[in-house]
Amino acid sequence: MTSMVGATALRAGLAEPLGCVTELPELASPALPGLGELVFGGHDISDITLEKKVENLVAAGVLPARPAAAVADKLDELQRELRPVPTAATQLETARLIAQDIDDFRRRRGLERVVVVNVSSTEPAPVPHPAFSSLDHLRSAMASSAVLPPSSLYAYAAFSAGCPFVDFTPSTGARLPALIALAAEAGLPYAGHDGKTGETLVKSVLAPMFALRHLRVRTWAGTNLLGGGDGANLADPAARAAKSGSKQRVLKETLGYQPQGSSHIEYVDDIGDFKTAWDLITFSGFLGTQMRMEFTWHGCDSALAAPLILDLARLTAAAHAAGRTGPLTELAFFFKDPLGDVPHGLADQWARLAAFVRGLSDV
Amino acid sequence: MTSMVGATALRAGLAEPLGCVTELPELASPALPGLGELVFGGHDISDITLEKKVENLVAAGVLPARPAAAVADKLDELQRELRPVPTAATQLETARLIAQDIDDFRRRRGLERVVVVNVSSTEPAPVPHPAFSSLDHLRSAMASSAVLPPSSLYAYAAFSAGCPFVDFTPSTGARLPALIALAAEAGLPYAGHDGKTGETLVKSVLAPMFALRHLRVRTWAGTNLLGGGDGANLADPAARAAKSGSKQRVLKETLGYQPQGSSHIEYVDDIGDFKTAWDLITFSGFLGTQMRMEFTWHGCDSALAAPLILDLARLTAAAHAAGRTGPLTELAFFFKDPLGDVPHGLADQWARLAAFVRGLSDV
Amino acid sequence: MTSMVGATALRAGLAEPLGCVTELPELASPALPGLGELVFGGHDISDITLEKKVENLVAAGVLPARPAAAVADKLDELQRELRPVPTAATQLETARLIAQDIDDFRRRRGLERVVVVNVSSTEPAPVPHPAFSSLDHLRSAMASSAVLPPSSLYAYAAFSAGCPFVDFTPSTGARLPALIALAAEAGLPYAGHDGKTGETLVKSVLAPMFALRHLRVRTWAGTNLLGGGDGANLADPAARAAKSGSKQRVLKETLGYQPQGSSHIEYVDDIGDFKTAWDLITFSGFLGTQMRMEFTWHGCDSALAAPLILDLARLTAAAHAAGRTGPLTELAFFFKDPLGDVPHGLADQWARLAAFVRGLSDV
Amino acid sequence: MTSMVGATALRAGLAEPLGCVTELPELASPALPGLGELVFGGHDISDITLEKKVENLVAAGVLPARPAAAVADKLDELQRELRPVPTAATQLETARLIAQDIDDFRRRRGLERVVVVNVSSTEPAPVPHPAFSSLDHLRSAMASSAVLPPSSLYAYAAFSAGCPFVDFTPSTGARLPALIALAAEAGLPYAGHDGKTGETLVKSVLAPMFALRHLRVRTWAGTNLLGGGDGANLADPAARAAKSGSKQRVLKETLGYQPQGSSHIEYVDDIGDFKTAWDLITFSGFLGTQMRMEFTWHGCDSALAAPLILDLARLTAAAHAAGRTGPLTELAFFFKDPLGDVPHGLADQWARLAAFVRGLSDV
Repeated sequence: MTSMVGATALRAGLAEPLGCVTELPELASPALPGLGELVFGGHDISDITLEKKVENLVAAGVLPARPAAAVADKLDELQRELRPVPTAATQLETARLIAQDIDDFRRRRGLERVVVVNVSSTEPAPVPHPAFSSLDHLRSAMASSAVLPPSSLYAYAAFSAGCPFVDFTPSTGARLPALIALAAEAGLPYAGHDGKTGETLVKSVLAPMFALRHLRVRTWAGTNLLGGGDGANLADPAARAAKSGSKQRVLKETLGYQPQGSSHIEYVDDIGDFKTAWDLITFSGFLGTQMRMEFTWHGCDSALAAPLILDLARLTAAAHAAGRTGPLTELAFFFKDPLGDVPHGLADQWARLAAFVRGLSDV
Repeated sequence: MTSMVGATALRAGLAEPLGCVTELPELASPALPGLGELVFGGHDISDITLEKKVENLVAAGVLPARPAAAVADKLDELQRELRPVPTAATQLETARLIAQDIDDFRRRRGLERVVVVNVSSTEPAPVPHPAFSSLDHLRSAMASSAVLPPSSLYAYAAFSAGCPFVDFTPSTGARLPALIALAAEAGLPYAGHDGKTGETLVKSVLAPMFALRHLRVRTWAGTNLLGGGDGANLADPAARAAKSGSKQRVLKETLGYQPQGSSHIEYVDDIGDFKTAWDLITFSGFLGTQMRMEFTWHGCDSALAAPLILDLARLTAAAHAAGRTGPLTELAFFFKDPLGDVPHGLADQWARLAAFVRGLSDV
Repeated sequence: MTSMVGATALRAGLAEPLGCVTELPELASPALPGLGELVFGGHDISDITLEKKVENLVAAGVLPARPAAAVADKLDELQRELRPVPTAATQLETARLIAQDIDDFRRRRGLERVVVVNVSSTEPAPVPHPAFSSLDHLRSAMASSAVLPPSSLYAYAAFSAGCPFVDFTPSTGARLPALIALAAEAGLPYAGHDGKTGETLVKSVLAPMFALRHLRVRTWAGTNLLGGGDGANLADPAARAAKSGSKQRVLKETLGYQPQGSSHIEYVDDIGDFKTAWDLITFSGFLGTQMRMEFTWHGCDSALAAPLILDLARLTAAAHAAGRTGPLTELAFFFKDPLGDVPHGLADQWARLAAFVRGLSDV
Repeated sequence: MTSMVGATALRAGLAEPLGCVTELPELASPALPGLGELVFGGHDISDITLEKKVENLVAAGVLPARPAAAVADKLDELQRELRPVPTAATQLETARLIAQDIDDFRRRRGLERVVVVNVSSTEPAPVPHPAFSSLDHLRSAMASSAVLPPSSLYAYAAFSAGCPFVDFTPSTGARLPALIALAAEAGLPYAGHDGKTGETLVKSVLAPMFALRHLRVRTWAGTNLLGGGDGANLADPAARAAKSGSKQRVLKETLGYQPQGSSHIEYVDDIGDFKTAWDLITFSGFLGTQMRMEFTWHGCDSALAAPLILDLARLTAAAHAAGRTGPLTELAFFFKDPLGDVPHGLADQWARLAAFVRGLSDV
């Protein structure tokens, strides 16, 4: 939502493209669609109007009043492309309706391609199901029961409609053998998982720092206080478990071992969309001397995520245009829990991303 | 001092080489002298014995009791190679005595080469002097007056004795045209400035993080509370100014602009060698949303510096052996205020360092 | 300014009286004038209109948009009572004009009494002058030269006009023997110094905590980052010295000794009116064990000061009505650097304040 | 354990009595037994010798090496009075053995009285049992089944042996109607619950600060990272729940409402006995302005608890000598979850404690 309003404001020259990685000179490329060429649509489980949502975001200090006011007259147009989630008797039929919706959107707006991005709330990890292992079994199962979690249902629908899929959440999404097979069959790229917006972003530069200096991290324990929609959802222990796991992976991958401590998530309604994370790191240096570091991150999740969603839409669209299929591992820079056997340190991820964009232009 | 005791303890297998970057597998190289091959000597302005210093460090929690006890019987040997600073009527003569001392040490211990490392207290920036601009003028001036600050006098003496020079402090050291000419004439390499041990180390990974994510840093303000010898010296405003400047340079170089705020240094005797630094960073993201981050670093300066000094001795010795001359810009990884037009982000500096070490082995 | 707008909003029932101590049930008293009975006027060195100032405060997030909008139509009325500072050939004549202005205001608005509150920027400590010691000498000196700093000139004028004086800043104000004599002669009360709004407020509860638990505070070092008008003024070292002294006094008074460390103030324009203070406290406990505490305070100075100014106006008016003269030491609760030999711990100050209010009602 | 070693060291003049509240001049009283008059004994579930425990505490930095060394020769004497927990076929019989042990100790050492202090690990809250409601029912139940949690079994035994009981943990202890009746019958005083050593201590001064300034606390969320014995025990969710509840009570009682947020406890073995707590407080001020405060507490639980245990032993002994019976509500100063309807702000608790001690001397 913030992405849509923001893109509209950027296009109108009302704000600088801060937070948009693809607007950095190093990533400028004719292969990427311009911000002004993006058209937005989507399915929304909420029945609050865009106008009301913008009002709420302004009141919460997330959206500055000026760009919000400036785009007020575009909200109607954006609102028209937001639909409720289709429902049908079987998941197979629901998936068909979603795919249809996507296709209608593409034709109605005369678009070259549509990139489907999952930005819904974190799901609990699904119970494993034998049908996940092959596309045929999956289709049979979908014809009779609700086997897929919503994120995977959307991945299925996106691929069925010939669209790349990006998972900005820790949910399952395209990470099932049956869906990977479907993407391959359809020749489509996909990306994920879990947008790296705050505490994990910091971890992805601090953990390499300790590693490069040969300092042994003993404890890395964190607390995330957050309100807002995602916070409320994460009050559910199953969803929280999915998220916490995603948040600690960077340490093991970057340090080569797992320090003590975990990443705690707590829902505090009053905190709203401005998340506060606190991390304590204890480490040993020369001759075993004990030292410590703490940090507090006070970031607005929407403001951090929104520009990355624009980036991912542009990059994935360009990858699709260039004929890329399968997991876009070069987009690890954006994710807490990236696809593939990739570096988890931010600097290495950046080098891969920059090479990827250069590669797109060379085509 | 901690370096000497530590190297002795490492050699005896009493501790892991934590904090020693050259002990990471990525930098292992036959071109580097082994830790066991290093021999220590030096000039010391203090007349406290090594034994007493070790005692103090153990009491302060800097040196763990076990390795300290284990090396007790080696202290005599180390002590024998510590001398008072020579003094003579003119700086030219003092420099000759220092060079002589270095040469005697090399021959007495049968060493291939000696690397001179400046680890003394921070000096105020010297008043510019016309003699700094050429070696001839400098020698004339040194024959009659004390034109050089101590760090530069040692650089002069080191080069005169055919030894590479490393400046671990923000002092002037080899950074004078006349001394650069001397190093060139003698075919010697040198490195510096100002070991990156704490707050600046963190800056060198966080600042690139903000830059790579296209987040605009508005304020970066820090406070360093420290006691110990370096702290007392930095209570002098002129020395502090030299240090603070060195600490903020990374921001300008990494971000491309200078955020508001400065780096404040305060001497608090009770804090001792365990420095506490606190930094506040405010930044703007998408549509101008204001966010913030804070960190506290509680590190032991000696324990962080000592292994880097061993690293620098090994790397500089290897560079000398390989025939390198002039500024060793590839060692920027170790310094707050590195020589040359080099990257200030830690990851880029690491890549250069690793390439440098690989290059040494290829020779 | 925030006080005036706020009081107007409170009267209109647009906000709860948060931050107003005199609105707590424990301090409710018929002796205090109601918030609705207060009428505002003043001298202002700025020529920015109230309307513009309110706009700026809303933009900075200090004033919420709703109460600001609601009082828009009252701003004209408030603006009419704001005057430029009078100027004349001599301080004696200026003082007369100020006193006249106060008196006109009182008669024009039909007020029982006027309380003069100094909320201007911090002044450097004045150079001592022999005329400060007696009222006669002072008057002679004022007739020929500008001996008094502005805060004291206003105290002089207030007392001359028969009005109590409150100093909300660390400036000199009424703290000169000549002015104390004038207050006594006129039978007037006065209060001060330096409103306790943030870091010092926290100190005034934490320092007693350490004392009551018999824990020895070794270091208490703090950094205050602030922008806004007061921040810019405190960029001046002389003004800063006055402020810093005021901020550390609580430690000596509460602990019985002065720990190491100082209170550093740094101007950072971008921080604006939302000040960030960080304090490090190291302390020793049983058998000498070393421990530590840190806190960060992120408060809006205007929002913290404004309600206290309303409190002080009400309390001082009631004290005046009750015939109190001289220093109102019972108001120490409000000040960093309170008048008289009073407790500096907040709880003890509260007990005195509550007793004072009860005493007013008993009259 | 730290108490015993510490008291021995204090007696020998090896350390200042830091952390001992009863050694403050304000609480000096002839009614309190001298530190030198205390004799220690106890039941210990661990079979590690005192000598080994002291060694471990020194290694962990909790006990300084010097006082530890100085008391080495007293450890044997202390060790002789430490016994394993007696076991018998029924709780009634076990209680008899414990009471017998206490009585033997008193007679063997020629003591006027024994104060039993529970310093064992936190228990989960027990399942309510009908026998808890009366002493007769309880005794019947104890004759056949293990109805009482250990803390209550010790309270029962202490009262049976004519000894006052202090609960330094959040466990049930004497808080059962049957045990309260037993204490009354035996004319004995008791005190508790849960020693206030760190985060809650800070809360007990900060929460009143917000209340007295009429600032509305919206969120108060905390994280406690701790290792050591108590930490391992608190890894058990049931024990943790008992502890967390105890930690938040102060907010409700002091503020008059419960802010959002909870107090999270996490076991991190590496942290050891030096607990790190971080709290975030968000609050509203004048006109609803949002502000925030954070603090980090890095304290050594043993070093904070040990002197309070000495204090409680002295105060409870004096209360017993003065004929006090029932709950010693005046000792609320020491507890997170104090008995009775008492103030939770530290300053008010101190006033009550000081009055209590004065009262003892007046007898």
